[in-house]
Amino acid sequence: MSRLEAWPLPALPEVRPGDDLAALIAVAAGDALRGGDVLVVAHKVVSKAEGAIVDLAGVAPTDRARELAAEAHKDPRHVQVVLDESAELVRAERGVFIARTRHGFVCANAGVDASNAPGPDTLVVLPRDPDVSARGLRAALPGRPAVVIADSFGRAWRNGQVEVAIGVAGLRPLEDWRGRRDSAGRELRATWIAVADQAAAAADLVRDKDSREPAVVVRGLERHVTDDDGPGAAALLRPPAEDLFGRG
Amino acid sequence: MSRLEAWPLPALPEVRPGDDLAALIAVAAGDALRGGDVLVVAHKVVSKAEGAIVDLAGVAPTDRARELAAEAHKDPRHVQVVLDESAELVRAERGVFIARTRHGFVCANAGVDASNAPGPDTLVVLPRDPDVSARGLRAALPGRPAVVIADSFGRAWRNGQVEVAIGVAGLRPLEDWRGRRDSAGRELRATWIAVADQAAAAADLVRDKDSREPAVVVRGLERHVTDDDGPGAAALLRPPAEDLFGRG
Repeated sequence: MSRLEAWPLPALPEVRPGDDLAALIAVAAGDALRGGDVLVVAHKVVSKAEGAIVDLAGVAPTDRARELAAEAHKDPRHVQVVLDESAELVRAERGVFIARTRHGFVCANAGVDASNAPGPDTLVVLPRDPDVSARGLRAALPGRPAVVIADSFGRAWRNGQVEVAIGVAGLRPLEDWRGRRDSAGRELRATWIAVADQAAAAADLVRDKDSREPAVVVRGLERHVTDDDGPGAAALLRPPAEDLFGRG
Repeated sequence: MSRLEAWPLPALPEVRPGDDLAALIAVAAGDALRGGDVLVVAHKVVSKAEGAIVDLAGVAPTDRARELAAEAHKDPRHVQVVLDESAELVRAERGVFIARTRHGFVCANAGVDASNAPGPDTLVVLPRDPDVSARGLRAALPGRPAVVIADSFGRAWRNGQVEVAIGVAGLRPLEDWRGRRDSAGRELRATWIAVADQAAAAADLVRDKDSREPAVVVRGLERHVTDDDGPGAAALLRPPAEDLFGRG
């Protein structure tokens, strides 16, 4: 019988650019982590440690940013940062920008976020390459747990946000049952399971949004944890050419 | 400190139309369930117990079903059942039907599924009203746990499926932090958390797809469990008029 447990590590101090995040997590973890565990880390502390922060004072909005900002009643500099982080805007309607990020994630505002930013005129953006960040954390953490870097994404058609994986190291991001059959020989329907996204979602259930508990241990996924770092969250991105909702 | 645990109840016998599902689960559960727990139940056993099964022998495909089936290389009777379950087809491309179901869920094939169906020429469809099903199970189960009825949905833009809630009783489906602010007074970004979907995802991590363990206990969500049954999974449906990806 499989059993899952999840709990947050103790609070971290405020993370600043240049901080050694793995060292801060290691102090919080003590001897709590072991191989086979999955450590789910909120992306914002990763972004902050890596300096993925934009000071609005240095942002010069283009005409396009000004135009979109006027329609959306937003700060043109903020919109410019969203555009800078975007490979394409999938939707810009009703004050909502749904963008495909440089990495390929489709999410609101290209992941650009003002809340919990280090200053009133700063924005936190996604880590430059969250899979690389995850691999770095994994290598440096005691016990070498698998690492998932998570962000909250809205969904088409459903209210509310769920946490998803934007960086992964050492966890099989997808469990592939395609081609396997049920007891009567019919192909199984739910056959390609986004394990890393579900691990991120499980972790979010124990974390308060206003706390400083960015790291959650998920234990019980040993069968999905691999010695090598694996393909990362990049494997979770559906190629735009295969997607039915790219531009519509 | 919050802590989450999840584990499957022992296997159920094959569920047949007319079976008392709550009684079958109660036997499997023994004294494992208590108030404050969330029991996540795979929708398929609910559908089977409720007789939400279609025999293809009695299905007469319309011209539209024949046309769509020819394009998609599918059985026209199967396509007809998908159409019967659909309020609208959101996309029909490359052999994939994304439909808005009668309930309002947007998912592949309107939730119609051949795998693990009771016979070679039968299909399992979604329960008629999964919120009603969840309330019925809750009322009849020992310990009166909250109940989530779950199904695996694909997502736009991301590979793989995740489990989501299609029926809920006694669990707050969404945790609403909208309007709350961070320590510096900026509005929080991820502010409307789809708790029930994340509980369904967590439960899926401990359940093998080919096992007969349709019921998973999730413990540690007491703060989201309510005495009344609440708004159900209906609260998770974004109204089509507010959605940016309705028809594209």
